Amino acid sequence: MTTSLAPPADSLSLKQRFREIRATSMRITAPLSAEDHMLQSMPDASPAKWHLAHTTWFFETFILQSYSPGYKSFDSRFKHLFNSYYKQLGSHPYRGARGLMSRPSLQEVHAFRSHVDRALEPFLDTASDEVLALVELGLNHEQQHQELILTDIKHGLWSSPLAPERLPIATVHEPPASLEWIEIEGGIHSIGHEGHEFAFDNESPRHQVLLQPFAIASRAVTNGDYLEFMRDDGYRRAELWLSDGWDAVCAQKWEAPFYWEHNEDGSWNHFAMNGTGETGIKPVDMSEPVCHVSYYEADAFAHWSGARLPTEAEWEVASFRSAVRGSFLDENVFHPRVVKRSSHLQMFGDVWEWTASPYTPYPGFKPAPGLIGEYNGKFMCNQLVLRGGSCATPASHIRASYRNFFPPHARWQFSGLRLAK
Amino acid sequence: MTTSLAPPADSLSLKQRFREIRATSMRITAPLSAEDHMLQSMPDASPAKWHLAHTTWFFETFILQSYSPGYKSFDSRFKHLFNSYYKQLGSHPYRGARGLMSRPSLQEVHAFRSHVDRALEPFLDTASDEVLALVELGLNHEQQHQELILTDIKHGLWSSPLAPERLPIATVHEPPASLEWIEIEGGIHSIGHEGHEFAFDNESPRHQVLLQPFAIASRAVTNGDYLEFMRDDGYRRAELWLSDGWDAVCAQKWEAPFYWEHNEDGSWNHFAMNGTGETGIKPVDMSEPVCHVSYYEADAFAHWSGARLPTEAEWEVASFRSAVRGSFLDENVFHPRVVKRSSHLQMFGDVWEWTASPYTPYPGFKPAPGLIGEYNGKFMCNQLVLRGGSCATPASHIRASYRNFFPPHARWQFSGLRLAK
Amino acid sequence: MTTSLAPPADSLSLKQRFREIRATSMRITAPLSAEDHMLQSMPDASPAKWHLAHTTWFFETFILQSYSPGYKSFDSRFKHLFNSYYKQLGSHPYRGARGLMSRPSLQEVHAFRSHVDRALEPFLDTASDEVLALVELGLNHEQQHQELILTDIKHGLWSSPLAPERLPIATVHEPPASLEWIEIEGGIHSIGHEGHEFAFDNESPRHQVLLQPFAIASRAVTNGDYLEFMRDDGYRRAELWLSDGWDAVCAQKWEAPFYWEHNEDGSWNHFAMNGTGETGIKPVDMSEPVCHVSYYEADAFAHWSGARLPTEAEWEVASFRSAVRGSFLDENVFHPRVVKRSSHLQMFGDVWEWTASPYTPYPGFKPAPGLIGEYNGKFMCNQLVLRGGSCATPASHIRASYRNFFPPHARWQFSGLRLAK
Amino acid sequence: MTTSLAPPADSLSLKQRFREIRATSMRITAPLSAEDHMLQSMPDASPAKWHLAHTTWFFETFILQSYSPGYKSFDSRFKHLFNSYYKQLGSHPYRGARGLMSRPSLQEVHAFRSHVDRALEPFLDTASDEVLALVELGLNHEQQHQELILTDIKHGLWSSPLAPERLPIATVHEPPASLEWIEIEGGIHSIGHEGHEFAFDNESPRHQVLLQPFAIASRAVTNGDYLEFMRDDGYRRAELWLSDGWDAVCAQKWEAPFYWEHNEDGSWNHFAMNGTGETGIKPVDMSEPVCHVSYYEADAFAHWSGARLPTEAEWEVASFRSAVRGSFLDENVFHPRVVKRSSHLQMFGDVWEWTASPYTPYPGFKPAPGLIGEYNGKFMCNQLVLRGGSCATPASHIRASYRNFFPPHARWQFSGLRLAK
Repeated sequence: MTTSLAPPADSLSLKQRFREIRATSMRITAPLSAEDHMLQSMPDASPAKWHLAHTTWFFETFILQSYSPGYKSFDSRFKHLFNSYYKQLGSHPYRGARGLMSRPSLQEVHAFRSHVDRALEPFLDTASDEVLALVELGLNHEQQHQELILTDIKHGLWSSPLAPERLPIATVHEPPASLEWIEIEGGIHSIGHEGHEFAFDNESPRHQVLLQPFAIASRAVTNGDYLEFMRDDGYRRAELWLSDGWDAVCAQKWEAPFYWEHNEDGSWNHFAMNGTGETGIKPVDMSEPVCHVSYYEADAFAHWSGARLPTEAEWEVASFRSAVRGSFLDENVFHPRVVKRSSHLQMFGDVWEWTASPYTPYPGFKPAPGLIGEYNGKFMCNQLVLRGGSCATPASHIRASYRNFFPPHARWQFSGLRLAK
Repeated sequence: MTTSLAPPADSLSLKQRFREIRATSMRITAPLSAEDHMLQSMPDASPAKWHLAHTTWFFETFILQSYSPGYKSFDSRFKHLFNSYYKQLGSHPYRGARGLMSRPSLQEVHAFRSHVDRALEPFLDTASDEVLALVELGLNHEQQHQELILTDIKHGLWSSPLAPERLPIATVHEPPASLEWIEIEGGIHSIGHEGHEFAFDNESPRHQVLLQPFAIASRAVTNGDYLEFMRDDGYRRAELWLSDGWDAVCAQKWEAPFYWEHNEDGSWNHFAMNGTGETGIKPVDMSEPVCHVSYYEADAFAHWSGARLPTEAEWEVASFRSAVRGSFLDENVFHPRVVKRSSHLQMFGDVWEWTASPYTPYPGFKPAPGLIGEYNGKFMCNQLVLRGGSCATPASHIRASYRNFFPPHARWQFSGLRLAK
Repeated sequence: MTTSLAPPADSLSLKQRFREIRATSMRITAPLSAEDHMLQSMPDASPAKWHLAHTTWFFETFILQSYSPGYKSFDSRFKHLFNSYYKQLGSHPYRGARGLMSRPSLQEVHAFRSHVDRALEPFLDTASDEVLALVELGLNHEQQHQELILTDIKHGLWSSPLAPERLPIATVHEPPASLEWIEIEGGIHSIGHEGHEFAFDNESPRHQVLLQPFAIASRAVTNGDYLEFMRDDGYRRAELWLSDGWDAVCAQKWEAPFYWEHNEDGSWNHFAMNGTGETGIKPVDMSEPVCHVSYYEADAFAHWSGARLPTEAEWEVASFRSAVRGSFLDENVFHPRVVKRSSHLQMFGDVWEWTASPYTPYPGFKPAPGLIGEYNGKFMCNQLVLRGGSCATPASHIRASYRNFFPPHARWQFSGLRLAK
Repeated sequence: MTTSLAPPADSLSLKQRFREIRATSMRITAPLSAEDHMLQSMPDASPAKWHLAHTTWFFETFILQSYSPGYKSFDSRFKHLFNSYYKQLGSHPYRGARGLMSRPSLQEVHAFRSHVDRALEPFLDTASDEVLALVELGLNHEQQHQELILTDIKHGLWSSPLAPERLPIATVHEPPASLEWIEIEGGIHSIGHEGHEFAFDNESPRHQVLLQPFAIASRAVTNGDYLEFMRDDGYRRAELWLSDGWDAVCAQKWEAPFYWEHNEDGSWNHFAMNGTGETGIKPVDMSEPVCHVSYYEADAFAHWSGARLPTEAEWEVASFRSAVRGSFLDENVFHPRVVKRSSHLQMFGDVWEWTASPYTPYPGFKPAPGLIGEYNGKFMCNQLVLRGGSCATPASHIRASYRNFFPPHARWQFSGLRLAK
C-alpha cells in the first residue's frame, strides 16, 4: 500500500466504488446456497461465507473500530473469528477449521455486511486521507478475495462427490494468433508502481533493473501446446523437471493440468464451472490458454519447449511494449460484456502467468508499520510471482505492476504461463 | 438380525412405528440449520444431513429397489452417494469427505425422505415377512443413527470456533444412592438374545457362559468419583494405564473427560448442549455418571480404584438380577417425560458402559448372507463392547442383550463405566 | 511370572541354563557384523545390539542392582539407555531411535554382557528363592528376545537395498499329512498354567472354560492351501475381510504373505534367510506352513475356506489331545539337530498360530506388584493371542499354555494359522 | 561445471590433488567406527559410509565406465546402490533408507575406494581434457561431501541417546572486531565465475548486475549479538518473522540455534563435537559467529536489528572490496594449522552466510547436457543461496563466486549470517 505516496481517490467516487465492489461480492455468491457457502475442501481454500465475513471484518477492524468513535461492533466475537493471519491482533482460528463455522449463519454474515456498510458509507464523507487510503486498501483486499471466492468454490464444488451444476464464470477467449516472438532490447529499465493510483506496498519502490536482451511470446501457452508436451511423455521424463517438481509428479500422480479428466477415447474434459449441460464438465478447448498448472508444470513445459519462463521484470517491461494498459480482456465474471482486446500479447485477464521470479522484496521495500505491515511482506519466501490477472480477476483490479504470488505446487488458481527466451 | 428366527411384528403396528421413528429423526434435527447439517468435525463423525439421507438410502436400497417393482428411485446418484460401507455395492465416497456434500441440499434430502416414505408405507400392507423383517432392521438402523446424529452434532458444534447455543438433549439423573456391591453367583449362565422381538445378528446365538462368582456396583461411576481419580494424579501415573492408553494420554494430552474445561478456580465445566444460558457450557454435576471417557480411561479408573470393568457376560447376567427390563430411565431427548426408574442398578439409559470384553462373535455366530452380512460381523476386531444405552439412545432401542461397540480411544460417544470385582 | 506359586528350579541346573541361554544369544548373532547389529528397519523392530544389551540390562536392573550389595554397574548411563518400556523407571529413549545407538559399540555391549554374567553367576549359589525366580524370568525374557533378534534381523536385512546373504535359520518341515478334522467334545475344560515349572503371569490363573464341541485341523494351513485363496481373488474380495483388514489390504497393497515376491512366470519366491544361494531368496515350498501372515489375512483365509480360527481355549485343549507335549519339532536355529515329531497335529515349533482370541486377562489375573507388573498386563488391549511357537522359538521356551500376542496387522513375526470349525 | 570454458588443470598436479582429496575423506572418517558410519538420523542426512561410497561411485560411473575400456566394476550392484539422485540412470534407493545399508560393510566400501583409485590414477596420465574436466568435477564433488560428512555425523552423534565423545573439528575464531559498516557504491557490477580455475556450472555465466548503494557489516553476527535477540523475545514476537518462519518456530518449538542447550542458570551450552571433555558439549562462546541457524532465523534477526540480509550479488561484490581472495581462515578440520586471516570482513571459512537471494539460474544459464546436467540446475527452487564457506569446508574448495544452497528451514549445516543495509 502506498499510503504516503498516493493521494486517495476522490471520496465521492470512492463511495461509489465502495458500493459497487461490496455489491459485486454479493452478486458472485448469489447463486450459492448457504450450504455451498460452508464448503472448505482443503486448508488452502476458504468457505465463501468466510470470505464474505473476513472482507467485512477488515473494514470494521482497521477503520471503524479505530477511527469511528461510537461505532458499535456487530458481534464482539467476530474480531477473533474472522481474523485471517494478523498475529499482532492475537490468536486466530486454525485456517483448516473455517469449514466448521456453521455459526454464524450466512444470514448473519449478510447482516454483518449490511451493518458495516451502513456505518462506513456516511463516514466516508468526513474521513481523513489516512482513512480513505485504508478504505481503498480494503476495497482492493475485497477484490482479491472475490477471485479467491471463485477459485475456492470451484475447488469445493469439484471436491463434492456429486458433479456440480454449472456456475457463471465466463472465460471467452479470442482465437490465438500464431505464436510470435517479441524482441525486447536489453539495458536499464524501470519497474514497479508509479503514479497516484492505488497499488500494494509490494509493488514499490519503483526501481531500475538491468536486463539482457530477450524475446517474449506473443500469447500464452495454449491447451493445444500443452497437450503436445503431454503426448511427448512430459509427465514421465524426470529430466524435464525441477527436483521438487518431479517429487510432486510422483507423489500426486500428476498427469495433466488440475481439473482435467481423461475420456476413454483419449480426449480430455475439464471442470470449468461454466460448462455446457448441468455439471460444468466440458471438452478442453485447444485454443484457450492452459490453466490450473503449477509452477513446476510451467517450468517443465518451458524446459521441454527449449525456452524458459520470463522473469517478472521482463514480463513487466514487455507489457508496456504492447500498449495494453487498459485494453485487457474485459469479459469475465465481473464484467460479462465482451470488449475486444486490442493487445496482441494477451497479457491481462486470461490466466495468471507464472514467472521465473521468486517473490522477494524490491530494493528498499519497507512494509507499512503496524498491523497492515503483515499484509504482504511476511509472505516473501517460498513463493513465485505471477503476473497479468485471470478471467476471475476483477477487471479494475488488474495492472501491469501487480504482483500475485503462490507456492510452486499450487494448482487451484487460474494459473498458466507464457514463454520467453 | 435374526431374520429367520423372529417372526416380524404385526404389520399395522410396524407401520405406526415406521411413522414415529422416521418423524423422530426429523424432530431431533429440527433445531439445526442447513449449515449445521453440513458439519463434519472429524472423519469418525458424519454430518446430520448425511445421517438423514443414509438412513433413507437403507430403505430404498435394501427394500424398495429389491422388492417393490416399478419403484422409481429419487435420484440414481444417491445409490453411490449415501452408501456408508457396503463393499459389495461397489465403491463409496471417502468417509472423511461427507462434509463436502453441499449438494444435495438439505431440502432435497428432506424430499428424498418423503419420497421413500410415501413409496414404502402403502407397500407395508402387502409385504412379505422377509420384507417386514428388513423394515424392522431399517428402523433399528435409523434409531442407531439417531444417537449418532446427537453425538456427531455435539462434536461438530463443540468444534466450532464459536461456543454454540444450547440444544435440547435432556439428561436428568436421579441422585445416586451410595455405591453397593451386588454379589452374583458363579456357574453356567445364558446370555444373548432370546424371544421374538427384534435383535441384531451379533446378539445371537444365545449361549451358555461359565462365570466365576463376582460383584458388580449398584451404580455407574459418577463425576465425583472420577474427580477423585483426577486429583490423585490419575492422568499422570503411567502404572495405572494400559500401554496404548498411556500413549494416548501423552499424545492427546488428556487430563479430563472429553468436553470438560478447566476453570481458573480449579472447578470444571463441560459442554453439554443442554447447558444453562446460551452456550451449552455448564458446571460438572458431581452426582451424574461420568461420561465421554474412553475405554482407556475407564480401565485406568478401574485399576486405580482397585476394582475392574465387568465382562459383557457379567454385565448381562447382572442386569437380570434387578428386574430392570423395561424400567430404565425414560427421560431422554426422544421421550422427554420423566418416568421414575425402578432399577437400583442404573444400568439402562444413562451412559453406555464400557465392558472388559473385546467385540467378538458369539460361539456359532454366522453373519447374514449377502449384503446385510456386512452390517455387524466385519467390525469384530479392535473394538470393545459397551452395554446399557445412554440418555441419547431411543428408549425403545434399549435392551439387555444389546451390544454396542467402539474402539478403545473413542470419547465422543456418551460412554461411561461401572465397576466390578 | 508365577513367582509365588512356582518354586524356582534347582539352582545348579539354573546356573547351567543361564550359561547356555546367554551363550545362545551370542551364537545366533555371531554371523552378524557390527553394522548388521545396528539395523532398525521400522520402529517395531529393534537392532540386534539393542536386544543383546536390553536382555543384559534386565539382569542388571532387576537383580544385581537390587539384590547384590556392592555390585558396580558397567555404565551408569545404561540404566536409562536400555530400558524398553518400564515407565516406573522413568523416561526411556524413543523406541524408533534405537538404530541411532552407534555408541556404545557392539564390543562394549559384549563387554557389558560379560560383566553382568561374571557378577551374576557366583551370586546364584547363594541367592534367595525370590532372586532365583527373577533369574528364571530373565532367562525366559532373553529367550523371547532371541526370537525377536531373528524376526527383526530378517526384516532389517530384507529392507536393505542389497539382497542379503543367507543366514542360518533352519525351517525343516515334514511333508504334511492330508488335513483331518480332530473332533473335541464340549463341556467344561481347564486351561492355563499348572505345575512347578516357569510360566509367565499371563498364563495364570488356571481356570475353567466352557466349550462347545468343535473340530480342529490336524495341521497348519500350508503355502499350497494359501495359494488357492490367492488364486481365488482372496486379496480382492472385500466381503472376505474384517473391515480394518480390508483397509490394510488397500492401504498397504497386500497381495501375498510378507516376504513373498512374484516371479514373471507367476510362481512365487520368498525371502527366507536360509535360502539356497547367496541371497536368502528361494521358491515357496507348497508343503510348508504359510508364514508371515497378519491376523487379518488369517481371518480372511478362514472365512474363505468356510471355517474359522480356533479360540485360544480351543487350541490349548486340543493340544493335549495329541500327546504332543515335549514332542514338537526340535529342529530350529537353536537346536539344529532334527528330531522326528510324533505329533500329528504339528502344533509346536513350526509357526505361531493366530487364534480368534483377543489378548485379555484370565479371570482373577493380577499383575505382579511393582516394576515387573509392567511385563505383560499393560499390553492386554488391541492384540490377538498366538499359540504354539515357531521355528525361531527356542525349543525349551515352548509350552502348551504359552500366550504370545501381537497386533492384528503384524506380519514380520513367524505367524501362520490353523483352522477350526 | 565450466567444462568447455576452463582448460583442465595440469594433469600431474591433478593426480596429486586426486590423491590428497581422496585421502582427506579417509582421514576425516578415521575416528569413526563402522557403526558410526551407519548413522542416518534424518532423511536429509546420509551415513558417512554412504558418502564414502557415493563419491567413489561418481568416479566409477561418470569416468571409468564411460571412458576406460576394460575397466571392471568393483560390484555391479553399486551402480544402483550409490546413485544419489540421477534420474536418467534409472531408479535409486529411497534416500531415507541409506541407514539400512549394513551391507556392503565399511571394509568393502574402503576396498571399493581403493579399487577405483587404483584404476583411475594411471588412467589420468593419458586421459583427454574432457575426462580430466570430469575428474576435476569429481574432486569438487568429493569436497562437497567432505563437509556433508561432518554436518551429517554431527547430527547423527547428537541424535544418539548417549552424549557423544568429542571429534576433531576445529573452529578457531579470531576475537571479533567491533562491527563496522562497509559502504559499497551502487551501479553496474559483474558477478559470477571468471578465469580458468574450476567452478560449478551454477556460477556461470558471469554477468552484470545493477546494485543500489549499500553497506555491509564487517563481520558475521556473533553468538553474543544473537543472544540479545533471544533476550528481547525474538523467538516469541510473530511480527519479526516470515509467515513460514513463524509456523516453523511454533511447530518445532525453536527457541535458540540448533544444538544449543539451556542450562539451569540461564546460560547456554552447545554441542560442538570439539568440546572440552568427553561429550562435545561446551559453553557457547559469545565472540564466535552464530551458527546452525535457519534462513528464517537469520531473516528474523536481521528484521529485529533494523537491517537486512545482503543479496548474493551484494555479498560477492563486497567480498572483492577486502582483498580477501585466498586469505580466508585456513584453520579448519582439513587444514589444522592456523593461518592468520588478513581479511577484516571474515567472509570465508567461518560460517556459511545466508543471503536474501533465492537460488535461481544466472541469466543465460544452461545446465550441462546429459547426466551431469542434473548436478545443480534441477534444485533451483525453494532454496536460498549461502555464501562464503564454513569451518567445515575444505579450504581449497572456497571461492568468492561459490553458491551453496539449502531450503530455508535447514539448520544442521554450519550456517550463520551477516547484515547489510
